[in-house]
Amino acid sequence: MGNIIRFGVAMPKDLLNKFDSLTLKKNYPNRSQALRDLARCALVEEEWKLENKETVGTITIVYNHHFKEISDVLTDLQHHYCREIISCLHVHLDRENCLEVLVLKGRSRKIKDIADRLIATKGIKHGKLIRTTTGKEL
Amino acid sequence: MGNIIRFGVAMPKDLLNKFDSLTLKKNYPNRSQALRDLARCALVEEEWKLENKETVGTITIVYNHHFKEISDVLTDLQHHYCREIISCLHVHLDRENCLEVLVLKGRSRKIKDIADRLIATKGIKHGKLIRTTTGKEL
Amino acid sequence: MGNIIRFGVAMPKDLLNKFDSLTLKKNYPNRSQALRDLARCALVEEEWKLENKETVGTITIVYNHHFKEISDVLTDLQHHYCREIISCLHVHLDRENCLEVLVLKGRSRKIKDIADRLIATKGIKHGKLIRTTTGKEL
Amino acid sequence: MGNIIRFGVAMPKDLLNKFDSLTLKKNYPNRSQALRDLARCALVEEEWKLENKETVGTITIVYNHHFKEISDVLTDLQHHYCREIISCLHVHLDRENCLEVLVLKGRSRKIKDIADRLIATKGIKHGKLIRTTTGKEL
Repeated sequence: MGNIIRFGVAMPKDLLNKFDSLTLKKNYPNRSQALRDLARCALVEEEWKLENKETVGTITIVYNHHFKEISDVLTDLQHHYCREIISCLHVHLDRENCLEVLVLKGRSRKIKDIADRLIATKGIKHGKLIRTTTGKEL
Repeated sequence: MGNIIRFGVAMPKDLLNKFDSLTLKKNYPNRSQALRDLARCALVEEEWKLENKETVGTITIVYNHHFKEISDVLTDLQHHYCREIISCLHVHLDRENCLEVLVLKGRSRKIKDIADRLIATKGIKHGKLIRTTTGKEL
Repeated sequence: MGNIIRFGVAMPKDLLNKFDSLTLKKNYPNRSQALRDLARCALVEEEWKLENKETVGTITIVYNHHFKEISDVLTDLQHHYCREIISCLHVHLDRENCLEVLVLKGRSRKIKDIADRLIATKGIKHGKLIRTTTGKEL
Repeated sequence: MGNIIRFGVAMPKDLLNKFDSLTLKKNYPNRSQALRDLARCALVEEEWKLENKETVGTITIVYNHHFKEISDVLTDLQHHYCREIISCLHVHLDRENCLEVLVLKGRSRKIKDIADRLIATKGIKHGKLIRTTTGKEL
């Protein structure tokens, strides 16, 4: 985490009271922790605007594994992008539906392309990309 | 703004440095102002989760005014919801395309319904709702 | 609108039924209109990824006009960006709070910069940018 | 998937051309598949507005495992919510940083609460919830 710095923040009393209530509601241990989280979220959003920055994302897809050959197609795709896809979790939601989460590391542009490609695969019912971070600079 | 309160926030040095750079890049006069903004954004998001809270939104729509009767339909709709729609700005983007921004005040649920209805009108090319605030409690 | 083309879409019966219910709930006159809207939304999102493309946005800000000099600062800023800011609507929400919607036309990158700058102004309680379109190609 | 139904959609030629280009760019095998995806996304968004509907989500968190006791706290929390958290994937991003993806099944309100709680844990650098679906009705 590096050295911790303490600094002063000025806030109107009403705003602070309301923010403290939200902090409490979301189970934050204290105000500093909640503000640090907001700062980090803003930084991660910014990071993803740089197309060549190395970053981390997770892709969640839901599909019916009975759909013809979808498992083969997904396996092929994942091997094709094995440099970026570092890990994968498979959950059997019910007899038909599967959920898969892939963890990817690479340039933000490349991760977005892979997400587009995976989500467009025939048989995928729903797919979404989460943009997160390597954690190195936060 | 009410009374201003000063309080201490603890942050790892690296995180603070990166946040300060972002603050600078976005032209914030100082760190407190940027953190207050993040806190207010989180509160406005929370506010919109309460369906019966009075709040404020703006709806932006783009449409081709040559499209049959769209102007009449929009005028009718706007009068129907005149209790919520408090003001409207019309811009002529080019010979064919118009942009209209409506300002609404009312329960968040009602504002969302009106937005759905307006955006679904035949002839609308694009429509979006911004969820903002009465400003009273911020 | 140009020539209208009719084409066939294949959809599982269950999915179509559910989509029709949503279409009805959102007051769309028919299925085609709802699908056209989804297609246009996807295109506008894509358009905003190109930084140099001419496009249109609206910025909504809420502020307390009693806050020292904020009106002057906002007026100066708006004149500075008069090439992009083509129109402005001001609403008196209550004795203290004002809402302002600005309509901007220009390169997407420039519109985002102006939005960042305006929203970071001291005294602004909440600010948001809507990314819409010139309507020319939709 | 159930029975497949074919129906006609009317779209202006220009809009259709642009949509086809986007479809191609995102690697969709065909137009129907792209439109089905947009329809499903709209339905999943709607599903999450119902607080008591059973649904599925994934939570991605990034943290420094050297941070005191965070692993214990996270393990305790996950066991506390073992009825909803059905699976978990852990990735070692580097010597310090870990990424964890949790798959949850339950009422949307409950999943959001657990996400708030996990993301607010001291030591978490970044956390996000993806709202997806059981796939049963899509």
